[in-house]
Amino acid sequence: MNSTALPLIQLAEQFARLPGIGMKTAQRLAYHIMTISDDDAKAFADAILTAHSTVRECSVCCNLTEKDICPVCAEDRRDKSVICVVESPKDVAAFERTNEYDGVYHVLHGLISPMDGVTPDMLRVKQLLARVGSGVREVIMATDPTVEGEATAMYISKLIKPLGVKVTRLAFGLPVGGTLEFADEVTLFKALENRSEI
Amino acid sequence: MNSTALPLIQLAEQFARLPGIGMKTAQRLAYHIMTISDDDAKAFADAILTAHSTVRECSVCCNLTEKDICPVCAEDRRDKSVICVVESPKDVAAFERTNEYDGVYHVLHGLISPMDGVTPDMLRVKQLLARVGSGVREVIMATDPTVEGEATAMYISKLIKPLGVKVTRLAFGLPVGGTLEFADEVTLFKALENRSEI
Repeated sequence: MNSTALPLIQLAEQFARLPGIGMKTAQRLAYHIMTISDDDAKAFADAILTAHSTVRECSVCCNLTEKDICPVCAEDRRDKSVICVVESPKDVAAFERTNEYDGVYHVLHGLISPMDGVTPDMLRVKQLLARVGSGVREVIMATDPTVEGEATAMYISKLIKPLGVKVTRLAFGLPVGGTLEFADEVTLFKALENRSEI
Repeated sequence: MNSTALPLIQLAEQFARLPGIGMKTAQRLAYHIMTISDDDAKAFADAILTAHSTVRECSVCCNLTEKDICPVCAEDRRDKSVICVVESPKDVAAFERTNEYDGVYHVLHGLISPMDGVTPDMLRVKQLLARVGSGVREVIMATDPTVEGEATAMYISKLIKPLGVKVTRLAFGLPVGGTLEFADEVTLFKALENRSEI
């Protein structure tokens, strides 16, 4: 016999479908929803529906936005000849927080990963190639320094280089504020290899 | 300038209000919602609203249920003279999984915790005392073996004992499948103190 109310089980199952949320955490979240006010529960449900229905991909860079063209692509002072290629909208937000980059972005919405069945045609590669034709002088490959990130950067750079556009990759080295002691061998080797004169 | 669409930020803020979900995880979950189908997004929002509006407290044991009286309290074969007092509906589910307990429950919906501002009158203690009067022979204090759980067990047992009802506490000792090496001193002492003849 099940002592837990069915709607509560169903809510927990919904939470458990989210990435990184296991069944135990999902149950805890479902119980939490029982303790919040009616207004808060409605606000949560509305936020899901509103975000899902109003947010779509920018027709230029594929970043998520409410408008047809995202604020970054719409801004005049941005250097449209430099495109920073990233995996996801989170990465755009990360670069924007640096307040240093004044080019534009291209969001792939994933990385090539044969293990997970993600092939290049499932990413926004075609849209990137279409953009590269018109007055672009540099494409910065800013995917994660992982196997999938490297493979994606290599794949895309091979497609873009023949078009006569400069393709660059983010620098590898010691993270600022980190300690040598905890740096792994590959990072340390990269830091040594790419050392610069002071 | 903010590169993230407002509905997405608002959804992330909703996720971040859940217990144990930080802002980074909340953003990841919000982006995930963008990738699911319209039907799935609607199902998620509906699950929140349905669970919140249909689930309430059992009028006997205060466990969460869709009906006026929960399935455990409604079941005839249950021994109504033994009440297992637990912190939350999760704990009822845990005891039910053992398939060994045939008494009933009482859900406190919290533990006494002056640090967090939780006083006894914020728990379902009054409802428990009202039940204890009529033909109950044992109350099992099954709160967590933490400072708050112990304090709550002590507080309630002091209220119930004068009514002539037996009050018991869950056994402390080694967890089954655990190793002596990793048992803490207090647990090991309790296991030694409460040893039984074989």
